[in-house]
Amino acid sequence: MRLTLHTDYALRVLVHVGLAPGRLVTISEIAECFGISKNHLTKVVHQLGRAGYLETVRGKFGGVRLSMAPEAVRLGELVRDTEEDFRLARCHENGNGGGDAAPCRLEAACMARHALNEGLDAFFTTLNRYTLADMLAMARREAPVF
Amino acid sequence: MRLTLHTDYALRVLVHVGLAPGRLVTISEIAECFGISKNHLTKVVHQLGRAGYLETVRGKFGGVRLSMAPEAVRLGELVRDTEEDFRLARCHENGNGGGDAAPCRLEAACMARHALNEGLDAFFTTLNRYTLADMLAMARREAPVF
Repeated sequence: MRLTLHTDYALRVLVHVGLAPGRLVTISEIAECFGISKNHLTKVVHQLGRAGYLETVRGKFGGVRLSMAPEAVRLGELVRDTEEDFRLARCHENGNGGGDAAPCRLEAACMARHALNEGLDAFFTTLNRYTLADMLAMARREAPVF
Repeated sequence: MRLTLHTDYALRVLVHVGLAPGRLVTISEIAECFGISKNHLTKVVHQLGRAGYLETVRGKFGGVRLSMAPEAVRLGELVRDTEEDFRLARCHENGNGGGDAAPCRLEAACMARHALNEGLDAFFTTLNRYTLADMLAMARREAPVF
């Protein structure tokens, strides 16, 4: 149980872009800073654009910038938007078994579904107490020369 | 972000064994019921034994049984015991980057670490409100002929 690299990269992109207000940031710059694949990063930036977090300016001096105030970017919502798979137990798909397991009268995972869903709600509610603005404040404290 | 198959199987095993109090259950029986690999299941049962949830009786008429009262098996603790990887962001390992990413002054994932850890705590606290006894009660309602 861990967040995907995709979410990890999305967080990095938003902090990096958020720390450079007033200028456009290129994917190459972010890729170089974090030493990660430009290809993967392009997908992350595209998805953040579609989800309304970033806007892209095309052209020679183009790049991306935040399209929301950092205070409005809630961490729980962001993680929900970037993670694709929240099926904590396999029966989530159809309510009774599923996946490659043969059906059985005792679908234990389904018995836990209610508890797991409640747990996930608590996870996101807690995350939503934090915003990108909090992350930027922390980044500025830890990297004051930026 | 999802629970591993290992946890899914652990839940199934404990419900199956918990629904058969007073008798020993074999791995073959559980494997057949759920149509899952006996090999994988053996590992799950072994781990549940080491963690104190199951006890094994060897021999021809051997098998496993619960070694704790179902009311004492808290779901959050069980998931913590069966999931191996709770590093929601990669900086969890050493507090500043890590993994295969090159170091960068802006470790965005680390900025979110505090929020993510708080979210995980909320997830487990919520899960701990439920026990194996709740799952068994639900299983008995849904499979009354068992």
